[in-house]
Amino acid sequence: MWLELAAIFFAGVSGALAAVRKNFDIFSVLLLAWVTGLGGGLLRDVLIGAVPPVGITSWKYVTAALLAGALVHLFHVRLDRLRRAIIVFDAGALAMFVVIGVHKGLEYGVGPLAAVFVGMLTGIGGGLVRDLLVDEAPIVLRDRELYAIPATAGAVLAAWVGEMGHLNYVTGGLICLAIFGFRLVSLRLRWQA
Amino acid sequence: MWLELAAIFFAGVSGALAAVRKNFDIFSVLLLAWVTGLGGGLLRDVLIGAVPPVGITSWKYVTAALLAGALVHLFHVRLDRLRRAIIVFDAGALAMFVVIGVHKGLEYGVGPLAAVFVGMLTGIGGGLVRDLLVDEAPIVLRDRELYAIPATAGAVLAAWVGEMGHLNYVTGGLICLAIFGFRLVSLRLRWQA
Amino acid sequence: MWLELAAIFFAGVSGALAAVRKNFDIFSVLLLAWVTGLGGGLLRDVLIGAVPPVGITSWKYVTAALLAGALVHLFHVRLDRLRRAIIVFDAGALAMFVVIGVHKGLEYGVGPLAAVFVGMLTGIGGGLVRDLLVDEAPIVLRDRELYAIPATAGAVLAAWVGEMGHLNYVTGGLICLAIFGFRLVSLRLRWQA
Repeated sequence: MWLELAAIFFAGVSGALAAVRKNFDIFSVLLLAWVTGLGGGLLRDVLIGAVPPVGITSWKYVTAALLAGALVHLFHVRLDRLRRAIIVFDAGALAMFVVIGVHKGLEYGVGPLAAVFVGMLTGIGGGLVRDLLVDEAPIVLRDRELYAIPATAGAVLAAWVGEMGHLNYVTGGLICLAIFGFRLVSLRLRWQA
Repeated sequence: MWLELAAIFFAGVSGALAAVRKNFDIFSVLLLAWVTGLGGGLLRDVLIGAVPPVGITSWKYVTAALLAGALVHLFHVRLDRLRRAIIVFDAGALAMFVVIGVHKGLEYGVGPLAAVFVGMLTGIGGGLVRDLLVDEAPIVLRDRELYAIPATAGAVLAAWVGEMGHLNYVTGGLICLAIFGFRLVSLRLRWQA
Repeated sequence: MWLELAAIFFAGVSGALAAVRKNFDIFSVLLLAWVTGLGGGLLRDVLIGAVPPVGITSWKYVTAALLAGALVHLFHVRLDRLRRAIIVFDAGALAMFVVIGVHKGLEYGVGPLAAVFVGMLTGIGGGLVRDLLVDEAPIVLRDRELYAIPATAGAVLAAWVGEMGHLNYVTGGLICLAIFGFRLVSLRLRWQA
C-alpha cells in the first residue's frame, strides 16, 4: 500500500515536471501529475470493468498524485538537481505499476493475456497520456531506451506466476525488483533496442 | 434539458470552429462538433459505468452537436463576427457541464471525490479531446486564462451541496451562474493564474 | 472469423508502417500494430460495456495484430512496393470493421444510433489512435479523400438492416462490399469532399 502510493507519487512528479518544462500554470501542473500518476490505472480499471476507477475515487491515491504536483510546482528548481534520483524512482514506479496491474487484472478474472495488457498499460499508460497532453510523441515510442521490454517481460512473468496461483507479496516483490534492476542497468549501460 | 442541449450546441460550435480553422472538410467539422459537444459526457459515462453513454445513444444530444457542426460549416464567415458571443456561450456551456456532471456522478453513487472529477471532466473533457484531435496542446493546459479554477471550485461546491442532499434546480442553477460569472469576469479583467 | 482476423492484420500493417516511417524501435512497431488493429474495437467494447474487450482477451486477435507488426518490422522495405495492395486491404479492413462494429453494438442492445457510432468508431478508431500516438493530426480529419463518408453510410445502412432483423452474413457481406467498392472507386477517381 505505501509502496503503491510512493509509485503514484513519483509518477506524478514526472508528469508535473513535464508540465513545468512547458511553462504551464499551477492547475495544469496538478492535472498532469494526476494524469501521469493515476492515468495508467484509470485505463486499466475501465478495461477490466472496475468502474468507477480508483484513480478518481480514492482520496489516498488522488492526494499522493496532487501532492507530487504541488511539491514540484513549489520546488522545481531544486528538483533539477534530483534528476538522477527521479529516474531511479520512475523506474521503481514502472516496476510496481506493472505487477499491481497484472494482479488486479487476474483478480477481476480477465484471463492471463488481458492481465499482461492491463499490467503493461498500468505501467506505461500514465506516461503515454502525459506525452499526448503536452503534445509530444510518447517517450515510450520514441525513445530507444529499454523501457517497454522490462515492462512486457515483467507483465508476462507476473501473469504466468499468477495463473499458477503463486502471485503474492514475495513473488510480486521479486518481479518488481527484476523489472527495476533491468531498467536501471539498461540506463546505466545505455542499452538500446 | 433545454439548457443542456444549448450547452452541447455551443460546445459543438467551438469544436466545429477549431476544425474550420484547420481547413477540414465537412465530415471532420461534424466529427469535431460531436466530440467537443459530447466528448466530456462520454468520458464521464465510461468512468461511472453508465454505458452505453448518452453521447452516442441520445438522438437529441447528437442532433444538437451535429446541428452546431452543420451551421458552422455553412455560416462560419459570419461566426467570426460573433466571436465575443461564442466566448460567452462557451463559458455558459462549461458551467452547465460541470454541474450536470457532478449531479450524474452522485446519482450513480460514485462518491463526492469521483463526482468532482467527473464534473470537471464533463466540463473540460470535450475541449481536451478537440485539441488532441487537431494536434494542439490543449488550451486548458496551455492557456493562463482562469478556465480550470472556476470549473474546479464549482465542481467541489456542487459535490458538497449534493452530498448534503441539496443539489436541485435552484442550487445547481446558482452554482452554474457563479462559475459562469467568475469566468466572464476573469476574461474581462484578463486575470491570469 | 477469418475475414475479421484479416481485417485486424491489415489494419495492423498500416499502424506498423506508420511506426516504421517514424523510425521507431521494434516494440513501438508492435504497439502501433496492436493499437491500429484492435484500438477501434477496444473503444467500441468500452462504450457498449463489453469489458474486458476482445482486443486484450482474444489470443487470435492479438496474434493477428502482432504478427502484422513483426512482419512489417522484418520486411518493410519490400512492403513499400506493396503500397497499392495495402491501400486496397486497408479499405477492406475499414468496410469489415464498420459492419462488425454495428452488429456487435446491436447485439449488446445499445439501439440503432449508438450502433452507428460504434460501427464508425470500430472502423476509424484504430487509425485515429495511431495518428495521435505518432503525433500527427489524424488522417481521417485532415485528408479530403472520401474515407469517412462510406464508413458513415455503411454504418447507417447496417444499423437500419439490423434493426429490421435482417443483418446476417449475406446482407452484412453486401454492405461490406458496398463500402469497399465506394472507397476504391473514390481513390481511383481522386474524389474529394
